Amino acid sequence: MKKLELFEQIQKKKSFLCVGLDSDITKIPKHLLELEDPVFEFNKQIIDATLPYTVSYKPNIAFYESRGAEGWISLERTIKYLNEKAPEVFTIADAKRGDIGNTSKMYAKAFFENMQFDAITVAPYMGVDSVSPFLEYSNKWVVLLALTSNAGSADFQVPRRDFSEALFRFGIRSSRSKALYEKVLMTSQNWANDEQMMYVIGATKAEYFDQVRDSAPNHFLLVPGVGAQGGSLEEVAAHGMNSQCGLIVNSSRGIIFASQGTDFAEKAAESAQELQKEMEVLLRNKGLIS
Amino acid sequence: MKKLELFEQIQKKKSFLCVGLDSDITKIPKHLLELEDPVFEFNKQIIDATLPYTVSYKPNIAFYESRGAEGWISLERTIKYLNEKAPEVFTIADAKRGDIGNTSKMYAKAFFENMQFDAITVAPYMGVDSVSPFLEYSNKWVVLLALTSNAGSADFQVPRRDFSEALFRFGIRSSRSKALYEKVLMTSQNWANDEQMMYVIGATKAEYFDQVRDSAPNHFLLVPGVGAQGGSLEEVAAHGMNSQCGLIVNSSRGIIFASQGTDFAEKAAESAQELQKEMEVLLRNKGLIS
Repeated sequence: MKKLELFEQIQKKKSFLCVGLDSDITKIPKHLLELEDPVFEFNKQIIDATLPYTVSYKPNIAFYESRGAEGWISLERTIKYLNEKAPEVFTIADAKRGDIGNTSKMYAKAFFENMQFDAITVAPYMGVDSVSPFLEYSNKWVVLLALTSNAGSADFQVPRRDFSEALFRFGIRSSRSKALYEKVLMTSQNWANDEQMMYVIGATKAEYFDQVRDSAPNHFLLVPGVGAQGGSLEEVAAHGMNSQCGLIVNSSRGIIFASQGTDFAEKAAESAQELQKEMEVLLRNKGLIS
Repeated sequence: MKKLELFEQIQKKKSFLCVGLDSDITKIPKHLLELEDPVFEFNKQIIDATLPYTVSYKPNIAFYESRGAEGWISLERTIKYLNEKAPEVFTIADAKRGDIGNTSKMYAKAFFENMQFDAITVAPYMGVDSVSPFLEYSNKWVVLLALTSNAGSADFQVPRRDFSEALFRFGIRSSRSKALYEKVLMTSQNWANDEQMMYVIGATKAEYFDQVRDSAPNHFLLVPGVGAQGGSLEEVAAHGMNSQCGLIVNSSRGIIFASQGTDFAEKAAESAQELQKEMEVLLRNKGLIS
């Protein structure tokens, strides 16, 4: 999928929402458990109900992998259903993979060839040759972890308050240490452009969005952390939105587990629509839709 | 498994070899392809043949995942066979996982509960709460990526040659920027001790082993990159071995694809034995075996 097609879909649906399919079998409605593939049936109903309000779906691979081969079958059925029912939506395998070249190549095969996802989340720790096998698929996307939404992001990703940082404050600009997430944003732009790469920037890190846009003005950002994790949609839009929107904001639990009763799909649609309505206002205020 | 048990096994087998089960279905001997589960049959014969010479096996999950649900069945059969046939060997899921807490918990369930691996490789990028769910299993291990064997490790993991590094050379010690891999080694020691955590340090990085041992003198290190990737076993042992060996050295392709004919298991055993013999000398020179 091209970046422009994604933007056009955002304009058409007046939404930049991604629904996270973190479909935990212990949390889906009990009445589905009698079926042959309860997780697929759950996903199918969630997709049917939320499709008018969302431009993207993001299965979280851990929730499938934790069920072994059976979980993989649910995942394969889900992506197949998505690709048939709504080939225009942007599908992301939230897998956080990354390994030496010959191994990343196998992960790329799994998610891009066998399952035909549009994108995969990748961890940057191992550098260029752990990411490039995914970039060999010219019509597919890497969504690289940069600044994540969790508390542990403070361990390695954000600025270090050290001696050279202090010098920087006294005006010696060249000596400022770059934070790891900034190095990831800068270095990875040598690997691919904004037609093949996006970045994960957590909604809980709204204070960094201006800096992120300094480094990556035109890239799409995949933004988790709105909702259950406490990030603010308005703050994210205020500091992160660009002239092609440039944002895909994910919500998982807040939508898919809005109700755990027989009305789960209806309630999921309501939650998705509520976010879509907020997004519509933000897109209009920015002048991106009429 | 306890650290001491692993060391005792190393003394008994006079080996600190790990056999990497990167069992690519396109590279296994053709005569196996007629069987119902060729990859499992390949692994079984490799395990039977190499068991006298190795203390550890490390399936590389990408090679299973790339075959979908079928691949997961091969993987599940392999770990089950290992746990029944040789419960004393140290089994590592080479998965390079790591995600927010509720998601890492699902990966831990997949690899520690469903499949009963002893250890899993984890990427540190997302920090403490992406790793701690794996550490809740008191008898299991996290093998954290620190300094990897691939070329891309130079992108983020190794020292930056910047202003504060220059100051360091002129003797201003406190200002030296720590390399990311050093920060990972130091910070993660607040998360778990050397009875639950190991580090990946690539054999191709022999010049860093002294620094690694300064930061983590007692930890076991999982060392890939000997063989196909060009690392030297002697260099690794000279700079990395400690009083309980402290090394698990992996070889994958050099052993499992030593021959692609009907004699593959025999040739794999010969390759494994060759490495074991070198390891025996290194262990004896260090005074760890008689």
